[in-house]
Amino acid sequence: MVVQRVRRPTLDEMDLPIGKKTRLHRILYEHGPGHGLALILPIDQGIEHGPVDFFANPDSADPEFQLRLCVEGGYSAVAFHYGLAAKHLRPYAGTVPLILKINGKTNIPSDAQPFSGLTGFVEDAVRLGADAIGYTLYVGSPRQDEDMRQLAEVRRSCDAFGMPLIVWSYPRGEAIDRKGGRDSLYAVDYAARLACEMGADVVKLNVPELDAKAAAAPKPYSTLTLGYREAVEKVVKSAGRTLVLFSGGSKMGDADLLEKARHCMEAGAVGLIFGRNLWQRAMPDALRITAEIKRIMLGTA
Amino acid sequence: MVVQRVRRPTLDEMDLPIGKKTRLHRILYEHGPGHGLALILPIDQGIEHGPVDFFANPDSADPEFQLRLCVEGGYSAVAFHYGLAAKHLRPYAGTVPLILKINGKTNIPSDAQPFSGLTGFVEDAVRLGADAIGYTLYVGSPRQDEDMRQLAEVRRSCDAFGMPLIVWSYPRGEAIDRKGGRDSLYAVDYAARLACEMGADVVKLNVPELDAKAAAAPKPYSTLTLGYREAVEKVVKSAGRTLVLFSGGSKMGDADLLEKARHCMEAGAVGLIFGRNLWQRAMPDALRITAEIKRIMLGTA
Amino acid sequence: MVVQRVRRPTLDEMDLPIGKKTRLHRILYEHGPGHGLALILPIDQGIEHGPVDFFANPDSADPEFQLRLCVEGGYSAVAFHYGLAAKHLRPYAGTVPLILKINGKTNIPSDAQPFSGLTGFVEDAVRLGADAIGYTLYVGSPRQDEDMRQLAEVRRSCDAFGMPLIVWSYPRGEAIDRKGGRDSLYAVDYAARLACEMGADVVKLNVPELDAKAAAAPKPYSTLTLGYREAVEKVVKSAGRTLVLFSGGSKMGDADLLEKARHCMEAGAVGLIFGRNLWQRAMPDALRITAEIKRIMLGTA
Amino acid sequence: MVVQRVRRPTLDEMDLPIGKKTRLHRILYEHGPGHGLALILPIDQGIEHGPVDFFANPDSADPEFQLRLCVEGGYSAVAFHYGLAAKHLRPYAGTVPLILKINGKTNIPSDAQPFSGLTGFVEDAVRLGADAIGYTLYVGSPRQDEDMRQLAEVRRSCDAFGMPLIVWSYPRGEAIDRKGGRDSLYAVDYAARLACEMGADVVKLNVPELDAKAAAAPKPYSTLTLGYREAVEKVVKSAGRTLVLFSGGSKMGDADLLEKARHCMEAGAVGLIFGRNLWQRAMPDALRITAEIKRIMLGTA
Amino acid sequence: MVVQRVRRPTLDEMDLPIGKKTRLHRILYEHGPGHGLALILPIDQGIEHGPVDFFANPDSADPEFQLRLCVEGGYSAVAFHYGLAAKHLRPYAGTVPLILKINGKTNIPSDAQPFSGLTGFVEDAVRLGADAIGYTLYVGSPRQDEDMRQLAEVRRSCDAFGMPLIVWSYPRGEAIDRKGGRDSLYAVDYAARLACEMGADVVKLNVPELDAKAAAAPKPYSTLTLGYREAVEKVVKSAGRTLVLFSGGSKMGDADLLEKARHCMEAGAVGLIFGRNLWQRAMPDALRITAEIKRIMLGTA
Repeated sequence: MVVQRVRRPTLDEMDLPIGKKTRLHRILYEHGPGHGLALILPIDQGIEHGPVDFFANPDSADPEFQLRLCVEGGYSAVAFHYGLAAKHLRPYAGTVPLILKINGKTNIPSDAQPFSGLTGFVEDAVRLGADAIGYTLYVGSPRQDEDMRQLAEVRRSCDAFGMPLIVWSYPRGEAIDRKGGRDSLYAVDYAARLACEMGADVVKLNVPELDAKAAAAPKPYSTLTLGYREAVEKVVKSAGRTLVLFSGGSKMGDADLLEKARHCMEAGAVGLIFGRNLWQRAMPDALRITAEIKRIMLGTA
Repeated sequence: MVVQRVRRPTLDEMDLPIGKKTRLHRILYEHGPGHGLALILPIDQGIEHGPVDFFANPDSADPEFQLRLCVEGGYSAVAFHYGLAAKHLRPYAGTVPLILKINGKTNIPSDAQPFSGLTGFVEDAVRLGADAIGYTLYVGSPRQDEDMRQLAEVRRSCDAFGMPLIVWSYPRGEAIDRKGGRDSLYAVDYAARLACEMGADVVKLNVPELDAKAAAAPKPYSTLTLGYREAVEKVVKSAGRTLVLFSGGSKMGDADLLEKARHCMEAGAVGLIFGRNLWQRAMPDALRITAEIKRIMLGTA
Repeated sequence: MVVQRVRRPTLDEMDLPIGKKTRLHRILYEHGPGHGLALILPIDQGIEHGPVDFFANPDSADPEFQLRLCVEGGYSAVAFHYGLAAKHLRPYAGTVPLILKINGKTNIPSDAQPFSGLTGFVEDAVRLGADAIGYTLYVGSPRQDEDMRQLAEVRRSCDAFGMPLIVWSYPRGEAIDRKGGRDSLYAVDYAARLACEMGADVVKLNVPELDAKAAAAPKPYSTLTLGYREAVEKVVKSAGRTLVLFSGGSKMGDADLLEKARHCMEAGAVGLIFGRNLWQRAMPDALRITAEIKRIMLGTA
Repeated sequence: MVVQRVRRPTLDEMDLPIGKKTRLHRILYEHGPGHGLALILPIDQGIEHGPVDFFANPDSADPEFQLRLCVEGGYSAVAFHYGLAAKHLRPYAGTVPLILKINGKTNIPSDAQPFSGLTGFVEDAVRLGADAIGYTLYVGSPRQDEDMRQLAEVRRSCDAFGMPLIVWSYPRGEAIDRKGGRDSLYAVDYAARLACEMGADVVKLNVPELDAKAAAAPKPYSTLTLGYREAVEKVVKSAGRTLVLFSGGSKMGDADLLEKARHCMEAGAVGLIFGRNLWQRAMPDALRITAEIKRIMLGTA
Repeated sequence: MVVQRVRRPTLDEMDLPIGKKTRLHRILYEHGPGHGLALILPIDQGIEHGPVDFFANPDSADPEFQLRLCVEGGYSAVAFHYGLAAKHLRPYAGTVPLILKINGKTNIPSDAQPFSGLTGFVEDAVRLGADAIGYTLYVGSPRQDEDMRQLAEVRRSCDAFGMPLIVWSYPRGEAIDRKGGRDSLYAVDYAARLACEMGADVVKLNVPELDAKAAAAPKPYSTLTLGYREAVEKVVKSAGRTLVLFSGGSKMGDADLLEKARHCMEAGAVGLIFGRNLWQRAMPDALRITAEIKRIMLGTA
């Protein structure tokens, strides 16, 4: 098992209602790497970025690619918006757990005051047999009041149906750009805590970056000199009893990717939600790197 | 049958609920060219452009013209807003399938931040015996959050009633104008994917244009050198398991129109939704060109 | 009977549900000039302009004046907002049909982006025994999405209760001011069609004006050289199976007014909705001109 | 009895439903001066202006002061927001009729586009045994569409519960400031009519002021040369079958106040709603001036 | 017992419904210092400020710290948003009363027009066995209409469930910044009154500051020369029958803190809601200062 310096909360410590525990158990113990860990394949880039992300591996434009990768690579769950789930999931029902992403936006207009409208509803997820909801919260957006209200309503529905809530907690917008940027430790740390306070069961975070822009963050963040590992541990701790998934971001080299996976897991993440870094490859290569990541997750690398 | 390089998804592959399959079957197999193809006559220009579109053929201002054209020319369906449907459809009920368009706007004010408010409801379509809903989504509009939310609610109602959902997926607004324009491959390709992800059963697209403005599109679109045919195939592929209808746009010469029809069908479109190019003609001419288009669609030309 | 060059749609052609047909029958056949025609007295200027319109005839500030004029002059209906209807109509119930106007605004703030909020509800009209709803749609306003949505909801309620819907279809706002102005043929023609498409049973239009500003209208309107009569016929045709009422606008001389009435009726209007031109006179004069207008309407002048 | 040149509408002429008549009867006949007149004590200044209004008489910060004044002075009703009513009214229940004010705002931010959000609901008023609702409408505000819609919904609830509706009809905002100002005859006259058309049973108005700014009002108001009395009568007439209460405004000398009271009553007001002019005094003085005002109202001065 | 110059309202004087009285009784008599007093520990800074507030005492990032402090120090209640309550409270249920904070915002974007969206619902509080709701009202914000409406709806739900309502009544936004600042006596005094009028059972206020900026406040506040004690008494009086809690604000020295506590209690506050000043210390120190504060509250210091 990976050395885990920040201990992950157990499902019992999270004090989950029966339905949430049942569904998270499927993701964490019955599929993917198991042992309480999650390796999740997201395919919501078609909304967030458009088909541009599929050029690197044209096969990836067809969600069958990702579903086969999920099955053959042994993933914990796939994340889809409603349209893909409704059209592609039936043959994989029961085999690949579904995380239904229920809000999103294109990246065509300005991102100064971001807010993602709903693309689906918690009831859709229940009907589709999903095991979790995905919701994007733009932390620090000038439209945060609408976003937090919408999330609170989604959370309430999740409670009503025993549906786990995974928050994509993303610092975004003109304000955070002026305070150190979206990937600063300040921003990601705030995002981790906010998702926890809003009632997320799981939070998806980016790994904080330690760059020049971060000097514009509020004190004491502006003067912190944490290393990469400490920064990751910091945000995991700030998520408290909310399980942490780290995202992969845009494509990087294999060594860097595996190193990132190792750092994240050692820092106490419950898992990884890597998209482009996995499906922007041909199937054999995707399966190979998947296996390597899982070995790191399980401490058998 | 037309050479079809991109295979169309079958109704079974689309995994439709019974009501949607029943209704789409009427459009695709029981009316118009049949054989799983659709030739649809839209008359929503009275809202989108005003009566200006009827000058070329004054008879076309009276929807009876289009309804007669549907009957005599053998169309798969007519697309109306509520008012025209309620006042004109009864004598044609059962003969001409109805696609109820349920949102729209005039083109009088600025189109910088477009959003089409509702003009009708899915329940209206059910009551009127319609076989599909038409909804206009302005892809990339700064008001996309409202639009996507509204569409998600329409989609949910469509699910509840087994009503097929056809999305007019139109890149529009100040942001897309700065990123290559509304008809660029980048824009149309994104629109195809977004409609699919939002749960559209059918998407209406414009044929992408390959012009100078497209150089402002994001990479790699800005440097792509696809031919006309490849570009059309690209967007059909991006629509995935959503059937594609191509629109005709403003009036063009017969040869160009037929060539366009051929390209679209060969590229895997399920059909054509041509308005002005068909009803901006006197009836005999409209019937003649309709017959020619159907021959192309059926591969008997 | 007046020479009518554009034939009016009959109630049967309009394919009305029973409740709508019953109520419109009262307005068109059982009151006022009858014979399928309507002469309607509107008193919503107290909201739209304030008491300023009552200075010309101070008696007119008391709605009793208009109600007596309706009874003695033999009008088809009176148009009131909720307050006047609730306070003044009981003694006239059954004698003067009510059109309940359910939205409006003052003219105090800027008219650049007009939108009229609701002042009442369709259910109010049902309870008050009204025979129609009046709704003001600002065609081409930058807030058209809110307006069309609100109208669609009103239309739905009208359908639910069999209540006829009369749309005051008014081009307004900064955009139409730049495209030929609110009274241009382009603007009024668009307004006629839009009301029809939105499901209006009756539309109230202004007579289009042929002035210099109209050159700013889109082609081909900018170069049309229709005469007064043709212009009126054009907009009646554009309203399709929606009955047309023409408004009177601000006060004019008797000869002009009667000429206007004649033109409108000959052009196929179903009637007239003249306010200030009728009640900005002492009672005897108002009754006299009413009688003359009715003679023109009935072709007995 | 006061000479009353403009006759007040009777409750029967107002054609009130039973519940409204019952409740208004309590205010007009069973409490205060009676005889169909109303002397109302408002204490909503704590929201509209803050505690600043209580400096002149520190005892007035405790609503017990106003309630005792109501009892000892014999007022028709007290006007409270929800908080004061819920906390102070029980010992006075049945003795002091309640007008529940259900919207309001602070005067801290700009008043350019005013709109008062709800502070309570008609159902609250029913539960608290109130005899009327108070609602502030900002006539001519750029946000009038929201205000009129909100008022229409309140009015509908009032109808449902037989609850009288008193509209504080206040011209406000940047637009009216440019057209003669909030207290011009033009503005107040419009406010009187608008409240009536919206379905108010009673309207609270300010006495119009005849000052230099009024020259900016629309014609013919800009050139009217009405005296004080005629101006007051004008707005009472414009309120039609809506009963008129005049407000007192900021504190003035006793002679002016009594003169104002006399003018208002003679002009046909149903009563007075004076706040600061009454409770910004020690109790004995407040009782003395109350008695004088009542004598004027009853014509026994 | 502390000398209390402004008498606190009793629960009976507040005329509470049974459910509210029952729940407030738990906070005021059954936990914490008792005797009708409240010492409350808030941990909503994770939303309002982010994890930055936990640097001074890293243990405080885990709500277990605050919960243990509540138990060992003997607090009246803890204030949490939904996420922390759902994940941490079960072992403390029945031991530490919960105040569920149901709205909030980050401090990342501009605070010029603040408004806090909902993070939870009154029904959540009922289900979690909470004894009160916490709601932040931004007094004087340009968005006050939305805030007051939202609060009115929350208040209505509180009434429906017998749930006490504690309003964090905070002057904020560009307008109050121009009128003396958020902590001026003018601002806090207004905030006290507004919360009372809106129906708060308890109001959380900041101690007013007497600084140079206050000269920009409206008269007579701009010229008042109240001492610290009188200023605190003033705002307690302005809250009327709403119980007052004073907040601690950012961390200060022990002597100042205790002096502040003494002043607040002597001025009639029902208690203190100190966060950073208490949990930004190691546990032994936090327990020590808690004990000292309680002695001051109980008059045994």
